[in-house]
Amino acid sequence: MDFSIDDRTLELKKELESFMEEFVFPAEDEFAAELEALDNPYQWTASKVMQRLRAEAKKRGLWNLFLPGEEGAGLTNVQYATLAEVSGRSRTLAPAAMNCAAPDTGNMELLAQFGTEEQKKRWLEPMLKGTMRSAFAMTEPAVASSDATNVEMRIERDGDAYVINGRKWFITGALNPDAELLIVMGKTDPNAERHKQQSQIIVPRDTPGVDVSRSMEVLGYSDKFNGGHGDIAFTDVRVPASNLIGGEGEGFAIAQARLGPGRIHHCMRAIGMAERAISAMCSRADSRTAFGKKLSDQGVILDWIAESRVRIEQLRVLVLKTAWLMDTVGNKGAHTEIQAIKIATPAAVEWILDKAIQVHGAGGLSQDFDLASSFAYARTLRFADGPDEVHKNSLARRELKRQRAESGCD
Amino acid sequence: MDFSIDDRTLELKKELESFMEEFVFPAEDEFAAELEALDNPYQWTASKVMQRLRAEAKKRGLWNLFLPGEEGAGLTNVQYATLAEVSGRSRTLAPAAMNCAAPDTGNMELLAQFGTEEQKKRWLEPMLKGTMRSAFAMTEPAVASSDATNVEMRIERDGDAYVINGRKWFITGALNPDAELLIVMGKTDPNAERHKQQSQIIVPRDTPGVDVSRSMEVLGYSDKFNGGHGDIAFTDVRVPASNLIGGEGEGFAIAQARLGPGRIHHCMRAIGMAERAISAMCSRADSRTAFGKKLSDQGVILDWIAESRVRIEQLRVLVLKTAWLMDTVGNKGAHTEIQAIKIATPAAVEWILDKAIQVHGAGGLSQDFDLASSFAYARTLRFADGPDEVHKNSLARRELKRQRAESGCD
Amino acid sequence: MDFSIDDRTLELKKELESFMEEFVFPAEDEFAAELEALDNPYQWTASKVMQRLRAEAKKRGLWNLFLPGEEGAGLTNVQYATLAEVSGRSRTLAPAAMNCAAPDTGNMELLAQFGTEEQKKRWLEPMLKGTMRSAFAMTEPAVASSDATNVEMRIERDGDAYVINGRKWFITGALNPDAELLIVMGKTDPNAERHKQQSQIIVPRDTPGVDVSRSMEVLGYSDKFNGGHGDIAFTDVRVPASNLIGGEGEGFAIAQARLGPGRIHHCMRAIGMAERAISAMCSRADSRTAFGKKLSDQGVILDWIAESRVRIEQLRVLVLKTAWLMDTVGNKGAHTEIQAIKIATPAAVEWILDKAIQVHGAGGLSQDFDLASSFAYARTLRFADGPDEVHKNSLARRELKRQRAESGCD
Amino acid sequence: MDFSIDDRTLELKKELESFMEEFVFPAEDEFAAELEALDNPYQWTASKVMQRLRAEAKKRGLWNLFLPGEEGAGLTNVQYATLAEVSGRSRTLAPAAMNCAAPDTGNMELLAQFGTEEQKKRWLEPMLKGTMRSAFAMTEPAVASSDATNVEMRIERDGDAYVINGRKWFITGALNPDAELLIVMGKTDPNAERHKQQSQIIVPRDTPGVDVSRSMEVLGYSDKFNGGHGDIAFTDVRVPASNLIGGEGEGFAIAQARLGPGRIHHCMRAIGMAERAISAMCSRADSRTAFGKKLSDQGVILDWIAESRVRIEQLRVLVLKTAWLMDTVGNKGAHTEIQAIKIATPAAVEWILDKAIQVHGAGGLSQDFDLASSFAYARTLRFADGPDEVHKNSLARRELKRQRAESGCD
Repeated sequence: MDFSIDDRTLELKKELESFMEEFVFPAEDEFAAELEALDNPYQWTASKVMQRLRAEAKKRGLWNLFLPGEEGAGLTNVQYATLAEVSGRSRTLAPAAMNCAAPDTGNMELLAQFGTEEQKKRWLEPMLKGTMRSAFAMTEPAVASSDATNVEMRIERDGDAYVINGRKWFITGALNPDAELLIVMGKTDPNAERHKQQSQIIVPRDTPGVDVSRSMEVLGYSDKFNGGHGDIAFTDVRVPASNLIGGEGEGFAIAQARLGPGRIHHCMRAIGMAERAISAMCSRADSRTAFGKKLSDQGVILDWIAESRVRIEQLRVLVLKTAWLMDTVGNKGAHTEIQAIKIATPAAVEWILDKAIQVHGAGGLSQDFDLASSFAYARTLRFADGPDEVHKNSLARRELKRQRAESGCD
Repeated sequence: MDFSIDDRTLELKKELESFMEEFVFPAEDEFAAELEALDNPYQWTASKVMQRLRAEAKKRGLWNLFLPGEEGAGLTNVQYATLAEVSGRSRTLAPAAMNCAAPDTGNMELLAQFGTEEQKKRWLEPMLKGTMRSAFAMTEPAVASSDATNVEMRIERDGDAYVINGRKWFITGALNPDAELLIVMGKTDPNAERHKQQSQIIVPRDTPGVDVSRSMEVLGYSDKFNGGHGDIAFTDVRVPASNLIGGEGEGFAIAQARLGPGRIHHCMRAIGMAERAISAMCSRADSRTAFGKKLSDQGVILDWIAESRVRIEQLRVLVLKTAWLMDTVGNKGAHTEIQAIKIATPAAVEWILDKAIQVHGAGGLSQDFDLASSFAYARTLRFADGPDEVHKNSLARRELKRQRAESGCD
Repeated sequence: MDFSIDDRTLELKKELESFMEEFVFPAEDEFAAELEALDNPYQWTASKVMQRLRAEAKKRGLWNLFLPGEEGAGLTNVQYATLAEVSGRSRTLAPAAMNCAAPDTGNMELLAQFGTEEQKKRWLEPMLKGTMRSAFAMTEPAVASSDATNVEMRIERDGDAYVINGRKWFITGALNPDAELLIVMGKTDPNAERHKQQSQIIVPRDTPGVDVSRSMEVLGYSDKFNGGHGDIAFTDVRVPASNLIGGEGEGFAIAQARLGPGRIHHCMRAIGMAERAISAMCSRADSRTAFGKKLSDQGVILDWIAESRVRIEQLRVLVLKTAWLMDTVGNKGAHTEIQAIKIATPAAVEWILDKAIQVHGAGGLSQDFDLASSFAYARTLRFADGPDEVHKNSLARRELKRQRAESGCD
Repeated sequence: MDFSIDDRTLELKKELESFMEEFVFPAEDEFAAELEALDNPYQWTASKVMQRLRAEAKKRGLWNLFLPGEEGAGLTNVQYATLAEVSGRSRTLAPAAMNCAAPDTGNMELLAQFGTEEQKKRWLEPMLKGTMRSAFAMTEPAVASSDATNVEMRIERDGDAYVINGRKWFITGALNPDAELLIVMGKTDPNAERHKQQSQIIVPRDTPGVDVSRSMEVLGYSDKFNGGHGDIAFTDVRVPASNLIGGEGEGFAIAQARLGPGRIHHCMRAIGMAERAISAMCSRADSRTAFGKKLSDQGVILDWIAESRVRIEQLRVLVLKTAWLMDTVGNKGAHTEIQAIKIATPAAVEWILDKAIQVHGAGGLSQDFDLASSFAYARTLRFADGPDEVHKNSLARRELKRQRAESGCD
C-alpha cells in the first residue's frame, strides 16, 4: 500500500493550487452573478468567467486530469485523487474549468472504454476539447431505480434504429443546451436475465421526442452552475442502431464500470469541500464572541472541530487506499472499498458541513456562504449512484460471504 | 398534570381538520404557483388563494387562536397546542390563513402585553383584523446576536425622537411590503447593566432610512410564502419617542416574554409537520419496491418508521406538559421545559424529515414534495431564538444550580 | 390525559422518600458487603439488612405497591409509576425491600390474574407476604426466543402430569434457593397455530430433574442482589397437570398480558436510576477541576447535562402517558406506547449513564460508584422482553397499518 | 505514504497466525479457568498455559516484537502494527504470551530510552526475558489526573533518597506479585513551571510503605488475566535517588514519549478485537432465525455489519498512516494523527462490539462469549491516557492554530 505523492503529482498540485488561488477563488462570486444574468442561466458554458478559466487551466496543463490512458492526462487514481481534492475546494467552478466535472467525466470514460471509433470521433473528441457537454440519463421518477431491474425506460429495436420511450429525472447538466449528448439507460429486453435486460444508448439532444421540461431542485438549489438536474420525457425517440454503446444487454455492466472512478472522484472532491468548511468553521469561531468568550474557546465548538478533523483524516486515507486498489487490482478488486467510501463520505462530510453551518449562525444557511449549498450537495451524495442503504446491504452480504468462506462455512 | 382535550378544543379541532381537508391541502400548489406569478412574490397577502382561505378561516372561528385574553380567542396554551399541531401540517398556508403565523403572532402578543393604548390602536388592531403585517428585527449580521449584549444596533434619544442606526438580517416577513410594522431591538444604553442596555421600538416600514435590500435564503429557499427573510439597513431612522415599547432598558425582558409562547407554537407546528412527513414516509414505503420487496417490508425502513413514532410521541407529551406549565405556573416556571422543547424539537423533527426524504429517493429533495423545504425549516429552528448550544448551556447551568440546592451544596 | 399526582400518591411518595433517605441509601454498602459474606451470596432473602428494610417497608405501608386490585395496594399505573421512579434510585435494594422487585412482581400479577384458587393459595399468598421468591423461565440459549415460536422447551402431557424437557438461561432470581417457584414457558403443541403452541406451567424448584447450574453474568456482573440469572436444565421434570396456568396453548397470551405492567415498572425505575446518575454527574462535575476550570464550567460537560435533562423529561412524560392509557383504555389500547417506552428507555438511560461515567473518570467504571453496574442493567434492558429490534419492527408495522387505514388505502 | 507489508512482516504474520490458530485460541478457556484456580488469580505469570505459550512464542521468534532497536525485535511501527492487530484477536492471551502486553511494553520502552545502564540491567533485562513484570502508576483517585498539573503524589528529596507519598489507582498489573517494578509519576517540585513539576521514579514493589489494597473493577470485570488494576497507597516510601528516571522535572516529557507507541499498539489490538467481533456477529447472524428469516437476511443487522466494516476500514488505514508517520517523521510529527486514532478507535470499536452483542442476544453480555469483556475494554480506552475530551480539546486547539497559520491570521 503506497499512496506517496510522486513528483509529477506534486508539480500538478502546485500548479493547481496556484490556479485556485489566482483564478478560481477570486472568480466564484463573479461566476455566480454572471450565470444569473444569462438568458439561460443553466448554460454555464456561455459564461465568460468560465471560458477564461478553462483557457487558463488548459494552458497550465490542468485539463482532463481525470482521464487515464492516452486520451487523457494518463494519471493513476492515486495521482488524480490528490488533485481532485484540491479542485473540490471550489466545487462550482474548478472541476468544470478543468474539464473534470461530472457527469461529463463519467461519459468520457465510458466512451473511451466502450465507444466505437465512430462514437469516439463524433462525441468523445469534442468533449475532450471542451466544446460539447453531456448528460447521463439513469434515474426515473416512477420506480426505485437504484434497483436496475426496475428501470422502465424502453429501448426497442425497429429496423436499423432504436425507439426510446420513458421518463428520466435528476439528469444533471441537462438544462444546459450545450449538453448535446445524452447517454440513456433503458431496457432492450425486460425478459432477459436480471442484469442483461439493460442497454445504454446515445441520444443526441436535438432528436425529436426529447423534451427537457424543468430542473429538479435539491434542497432549494437549482444548481445552475452545472446545468441543473433535468426532467426529461422521451417519446418515440428514434436513433440509429449504431448509437448503442456496447451490445444489447450490456447496459448494467457498463454502468457498473462507469461508477467506480466516478465515485472516487466525488469522494475526493467532497473531502476538499469539507476541508474548506473546516477552515471556514475555524476562522468563524475565531472571529465571533458570545457570552464573554470567543467561539474558538468554547468546548462544544472545539469538540466539533476535533471530530471534523478526526473524521476527515480517516476518510481521506481510505479513499486513497481505494484509489490505490483500483490502480493495482482493478475496480472489481476494490469493490468493497469503493462501496465503503461511497457510504462513509456523505455521512462524514454532511456532519462537518452541518457543524460549520451551526458555527456561522443563521448566515451559514444563506447565500452569503457556500456552506448551505455544499450541504445540499453532500446530502445528494446519499442518493447518488444509489442510496446508502443499497450499498450497505450489498457490502454486508459480501462481508457475510467472505466470513463464511474464511470460517469454512460457505 | 392534565392535558385532556376539553370540549371547546375538540370542536375547534374538528372545525380545523375539516378546514384543512377541504380548503388548505387542496390549495397548496395553487398558492405556491400564484406567489411566483405575483409582481412581488413575497407579497403573500396579495394572493387570492390566501384571501379566500383567510375569509373562510374567519368564518369558521379559526382566527387569532394563538392569542390568549380578550383580544384573541382566549385559549390556554394546552388548548392552542393541539390546534397548532394540526395547522402545522400545512406550514406554508394554514397558520397564515388563520392569522396565526410568526412573526405576527409574537408581535401581536408583545403589543397586547406591553403596548400603550395608542400603540395598540395604531398597530395591534389592524394586525388582529389581518389587514397589516409585521416583522421583528433582532438578528444582526456582524455579531453573535444570541448574546443580547452583542447587539450593535443603536437607538439614541434625540429630543422627542429616537434615532436608529444599524443592520439587521434574517428578518422574517420583511420582503412583504404589507409588513408595515417593524419592531426593532437595539441598544439605548450600551453602558448599562448587561440586560438593561436594550430597548424595543416601533419603526414604520416607510420611515426614511429603512432599506430592505434582499432576502436571505435558507438552504436555497427564499420562503416567499411568509415574506422572506429581509436584510435591512437602518440609517438615521427617526421615530417619535412614543414608539418605544415599554421603557428604556426593558428590551431584553420584553424579548424574553415574547419567546415563551412563540417557542411552543413553533414546536407544535413542527410536530404537525413531522407527522405529515411520517405519513408520507409510510405511504411512499408502501408504494415502492426494490430488490424484490416493498420498502415497507425492509428492516432499515421499518426501523426509521418506528424510531420516528417513538421520538414524536415523547416530544409531543413534553410540549403539552410545557404548555400546561405555562398555563398553570407561568412562563417563568416553565423555563426549563420551554428550553427543553426548544432543544428537542428541531433534533427530532430534522431526523424524521431526513429519513422521510431518504425513503422518497432523490425526489424527496426536490420541489415535488414538501419534505426538503420542511427540512430547511426544521434546520433553521436550531438557530431560531438562539442556537441550541446557547439553550443547552443555560439549561445545564440551571440544572447544576438545582442539584446543588437539593444536595445542600449551594 | 391527566397525570396529576393525587393525595394518596403524594403521601406514599413522601413516606417512600423518607424511607429511602433514612433506611435505603444508608444501607446500600452494608447490603452489598453482607451478600458477599453469605454462604450463598445469591440468597439475598437471607440478608439481615434486607429483612430489616422489609419489616420497615411493611410497617410504613410501602408493600406490594405494584399490585392493583384487592390483593395488592390497589394503585393505578399512574399512581405506582411515580413511586416506582423513586424506588429506582436504589435499584438493588429498594424494590426488593418493598416486595416490588422483578421477576416476583410479574409472577404475582400472573398468578393473581390467571391462577386457580389452589395455585393462588399455594404460591401467591407466600409471595405476597414475602416469604417465598420465584423466577420466570422464558429465554433459551439455543434459539432467538424473542420469537415465541422458536421456543424449544417441551411440556408434554403424560397421564395426569406434564413432563418438561429443555434448557433455559438468564432466569433472573434462580440462584436464590428461596425462589421455590419457577414459572416455565414451553410448547405443549408445536404443531398448533403460531401463538397457540405455548403454555405456562408451575414447576416447584425442588422437583427432580431441575438443575440450576450457574449464573449468567451481564457485562461482568453476577447480580447477586436479585438472585443472579440462572442457567437451568430441565430433564424429565414431572409436575401435576393442575400446575398448568390457564389452559394449554394460552402461554403466549398470558406472557403478553404479563409484559405490559412489567415494562412500565422497568421504565420508571430506570428513570429513577438515570436521575440518580444525573445528580452524580452534576456533583462530580462540580468537584473536579482540569486545565484550570471546574468540569461544571466546561462546555462539553454542560452539553451532556442539558441533553440528559432533555432526554429524561421527554421519557418520563411518555411513560406517565402510557401508564394513564393502561389505566384508562387497558394494556391493549396502550400497545404502541408500551412498545415506545420499551424502545426509548434503554437508549436514553444508557446514554445518560455513559456520560455520567465519563464525567467520573476511570472511577466511574469501578465498584466505587453504582454507575457501571447501572449501565450494565440499562444495557440488559435492550434485550429484556425481546430486543429493541423486535419491538421496533412490530411498532413500525402497526404504524404502517394505521397510516393505511387513515389514508383509506388499507 | 507507504504501508506495504514487507517480506519480513509477512513471514512474522504467517508465523503469528499459525501460533494463534494452533496455540492461542484453543487455550483461551483453559487459561481463564486456570487463573480462577490459582491461589492468587491475578498472578497470571504462574499459569501453566501462559508459560507454555510464552515458550512457544519465544521459539517462533514472536517475542518482544513491540520493541524497536537492538534490545527488541527492531520492527518499525508499520511492521509491528499489522502484527499487533493479529495478536489483538486474543486480547487476554496473545499479547502477554508474546511479551508484548501493556503496561510492560511501555515500561520497557521507557527504560530502554531513558534508563541508566544500571536501571536497564536491574529492571529492563529481566522484563525483556519475561521473568519480571511491572506496573505504571499515574492515575490518582482524588484529582482529574489527565491534567498532569493536578497530580498530588509527592516525591521529595531527602539526602540520597526520595520519599514518596500519595495514592494511585487503576494501576494495571499491580495485583500480580510478580510485578516487582513500579514506575511512579509524582511531583518533585509543585512550584516549578507547569510541565516541569513532575518526575518519574522506580519503586520496587517490596519497598516498605507500598500497599496494594484491592483491584479496581471495570464494568464488573477484575481483569485477572493482566494482573488487575491496583489501588496503591504509598506512605513514606523511601527509594535511592538513583531510582529517578531521567532528571527531576522530566516526568511529563518522559510520559509523553511513552504514550505515542502505547497508543498505537492499543489501537491496533483493538482493531483485531473488533475484527473478531465482526466475525462473531456474522457467524451468529447466519446461525439464528427469528420471525421466519435468518438474522443475516434482516435489514437492520445487514446495516450493522456494513457499518462495522466501513468503520474498521477507515480506522485501520489511519492507524497505519500514523505508524508510518511515527516511523518517518517521529512521534512529535505524528502528534495529530496519534490523537486522532486515540479518539477514533474506542468510538468505532465500542460501537461494533455493542452491535455484535446485540446480535448475540442476552448471551452476548455473558461470560459465554468474549464480547462483553471486550466491550468493557473498549470502554476503558475512552479513559486510557486521558479521556477523549482532553484529546479532542487539544487536537482542536492545534487545528485552530494551523488554520490561523495557513490563512496568515496567526
